[in-house]
Amino acid sequence: MNTQEIAKDLTSMWAKGQFNESGEKYWADDVVSVEPGGQGEPVSRGKAAVRAKGEWFDNAHDIHGVKVEGPWVNGDQFSVRFTMDVTNKENGQRMNMDEIGLYTLKAGKIAEERFFYGG
Amino acid sequence: MNTQEIAKDLTSMWAKGQFNESGEKYWADDVVSVEPGGQGEPVSRGKAAVRAKGEWFDNAHDIHGVKVEGPWVNGDQFSVRFTMDVTNKENGQRMNMDEIGLYTLKAGKIAEERFFYGG
Repeated sequence: MNTQEIAKDLTSMWAKGQFNESGEKYWADDVVSVEPGGQGEPVSRGKAAVRAKGEWFDNAHDIHGVKVEGPWVNGDQFSVRFTMDVTNKENGQRMNMDEIGLYTLKAGKIAEERFFYGG
Repeated sequence: MNTQEIAKDLTSMWAKGQFNESGEKYWADDVVSVEPGGQGEPVSRGKAAVRAKGEWFDNAHDIHGVKVEGPWVNGDQFSVRFTMDVTNKENGQRMNMDEIGLYTLKAGKIAEERFFYGG
């Protein structure tokens, strides 16, 4: 599959909330995931660490809704916009998250994912 | 200025249609601009080449409207979404362009801009 096809498959899975399933299908073993920093470690290296980050997010939030827009493609990279309506379980704060995810593919797998926060 | 401040300034200029002015203010002399390919040369190197690409676009299109969303920031990079309503002057075709621009800053200037196309 080319970038467009993989991006469409991932976008379709994310629109159904299948974030873990999509990772198991497409994360490279040595995937690198980069958040903008702030709380926690901004860079997660390897499938186990990236999977753990997703599990942490799932456990820490009630997810009321996810909107996925895109993909936008260039070569072996594509971008997606995520708009999420979530409640932080710890402090009860409900918020809208607005992010761009930038994905770099190698050999049909996600080699890097990098997130950009709006605000 | 940090990434967020430069991104806000650029976004504000783009929302006013000041694409050339913003470039003169922020393009590094050795800026690299990467389109997804297709027609023309996908990589423009240097301020003169990137400026010429903008002039070509302006001359080849009637621009009816530009919507700018963002910025979304991560470290020295930020993303912006451009939605443009344009008519291709050569063939008269009116179309909505939906793009993500990914900007990488170095020393307060745009070192690289990379565009992702939706569709």
